[in-house]
Amino acid sequence: MTIADSQPQAAPDPIRYEGETDGHLVLIDQTRLPVELVYLDCKDVETVWEAIKMLRVRGAPAIGIAAAYGVIVGLQTATDKSAEEFEARFHEVVEYLAGSRPTAVNLFWALDRLKAKYVAEKEAGKSPAEIHEALLAEARYIHDDDRKVCRAIGKHGAELIQPGFGILTHCNAGGLATADYGTALAVMFTCHDQGKDIHVFVDETRPLLQGSRLTAWELLQRDIPATLICDNMAAQVMKEGRISAVITGADRIAANGDSANKIGTYGVAVLAKAHGIPFYIAAPISTFDLSLPTGEGIPIEQRDPVEIINGMGKQTAPDKVQVYNPAFDVTPAELIAGIITEKGVISPVTPENVAQVVAG
Amino acid sequence: MTIADSQPQAAPDPIRYEGETDGHLVLIDQTRLPVELVYLDCKDVETVWEAIKMLRVRGAPAIGIAAAYGVIVGLQTATDKSAEEFEARFHEVVEYLAGSRPTAVNLFWALDRLKAKYVAEKEAGKSPAEIHEALLAEARYIHDDDRKVCRAIGKHGAELIQPGFGILTHCNAGGLATADYGTALAVMFTCHDQGKDIHVFVDETRPLLQGSRLTAWELLQRDIPATLICDNMAAQVMKEGRISAVITGADRIAANGDSANKIGTYGVAVLAKAHGIPFYIAAPISTFDLSLPTGEGIPIEQRDPVEIINGMGKQTAPDKVQVYNPAFDVTPAELIAGIITEKGVISPVTPENVAQVVAG
Repeated sequence: MTIADSQPQAAPDPIRYEGETDGHLVLIDQTRLPVELVYLDCKDVETVWEAIKMLRVRGAPAIGIAAAYGVIVGLQTATDKSAEEFEARFHEVVEYLAGSRPTAVNLFWALDRLKAKYVAEKEAGKSPAEIHEALLAEARYIHDDDRKVCRAIGKHGAELIQPGFGILTHCNAGGLATADYGTALAVMFTCHDQGKDIHVFVDETRPLLQGSRLTAWELLQRDIPATLICDNMAAQVMKEGRISAVITGADRIAANGDSANKIGTYGVAVLAKAHGIPFYIAAPISTFDLSLPTGEGIPIEQRDPVEIINGMGKQTAPDKVQVYNPAFDVTPAELIAGIITEKGVISPVTPENVAQVVAG
Repeated sequence: MTIADSQPQAAPDPIRYEGETDGHLVLIDQTRLPVELVYLDCKDVETVWEAIKMLRVRGAPAIGIAAAYGVIVGLQTATDKSAEEFEARFHEVVEYLAGSRPTAVNLFWALDRLKAKYVAEKEAGKSPAEIHEALLAEARYIHDDDRKVCRAIGKHGAELIQPGFGILTHCNAGGLATADYGTALAVMFTCHDQGKDIHVFVDETRPLLQGSRLTAWELLQRDIPATLICDNMAAQVMKEGRISAVITGADRIAANGDSANKIGTYGVAVLAKAHGIPFYIAAPISTFDLSLPTGEGIPIEQRDPVEIINGMGKQTAPDKVQVYNPAFDVTPAELIAGIITEKGVISPVTPENVAQVVAG
């Protein structure tokens, strides 16, 4: 497998770490988008914790990377202490960051990688300062690996796109959620890098509007032609013949290819099928959960009604109304033309093809 | 044909006229919903004009009725004048009201009816006071006729609904848009009056949220079990088996049954078909435009991007983003299981059946 290695576009890095072990983490404060581009300097672990907690940084890979650098920043006051005091501080920082968003799987995954590295370095007899350096190298590895995964997804996905395609996306599977190019948006960014003429239609994605707030912003930052629509306009845009492919991200994919993603994705997939338009999922191999034979085992989180009743600071529904607010839905494999991963495109989406690519 | 004549539920009248020719018009100020139920007393024609202009009253039949009573109120200062002065005032008031919302077809339809009545009464040699009374009778006739149409639609539609049905609706085709029971909601209200156990799922209907602001409010007022969802959740609710029928209103229906309605209706119809759920339109005969052979001739109005970018008083998309904001879409007849009118249900929806019911 070849990892794409083209030059990044001149768009702001959503996450970067500046300096060495005494450096600091810089994040785009996503709560200020799309109105303002504000960078948040995280010079202590409390600022990193607050940024994760308050969704200033969001998206599974991005949270993991931010937490990993958060450990580096949190250890800066302890490198001249004893090995015991350093280790105590390490565990204190890891526990503290783990509490910032207890449902984020990548947060624990990243912290577990640092814990394993810590144990290995300690067993090798390294000093606190040396362990600190090794942990920074590990954080950078996590960060860089995610960037490579994004680029590889973009490269494989771009092969599916012809010049002149209109592409519909839902929610935000962009750079802001990852280290770099995102997953679904990586395909658009790569096409744009290749000079391929595309036009992206962006579902605003109620209730939290990740499409209008984040995806539209990311596309504008890169001068990629894009049109924002309300979710209920997708069918009309398809009927007008303006969509040649749909690409979304995924939160969790079962062994048969059934894919959980932001609420509304399933409906878009049904509409795409009715209009003869291929529907693709773009997601890293880490998204697959082969312990689930099908998507039926994926629990659907219910979210606070206030997001729908009073989502934008203004009450838009009666006080006592009942609300159904599922965070996700599951798109069955038979509606998915292909799953774009860093190891290539799984198509047709069958349990055998999933197993071959994921394990291969 | 039998017109339904059951007792109205104890829900507020959206429009009522109190008193005789010296009376006044009372409207629910729909811009204050769903947070507050505020009645607007219209004791002069300027208040009526402002209410139509500012969408305090909206919905095609409701605008026509409000304008008709607006003429009555506007003539109150002129009944003791000469016949010439009274006639000049009549034309001044009609012209003034016609300018309140120049694209509203029912506004002109109602004013034209009053103009015809004026001419007939004048030719019969009636005095200004007598003409004023005849015009009030005509306004009341328009109002009452709309009420009967709503009740008949409700009665015919209710025959399609079984106890235990979940019914999805989109936008607001309720009492607030008409004199009384509305069109799509008339079916729900009638089922409820009949003691039929139903549950209504309400699409919030972006961008202007008529579903959450108005439909959810109307259902709550009548204690009809209802659940508000975002538009992109409709497919999931269908997949869960919770929807047995979809019913929406229509703005304009072609001779073959193709139906223009609020943006998003077409997508809901496609989703209903994919889930084996019947999709119905509920609309008065006056909605049919037999001069259009199909829906292809119906122009799609484009609305201001600000509704999507900054629709709820808060900017939720980047400044320079392109936006597509069609007000309507057209649902082809083959996706429509039936069109519920005051003269019965047109099903299957064919040009022959449309012609028979509309002309019959």
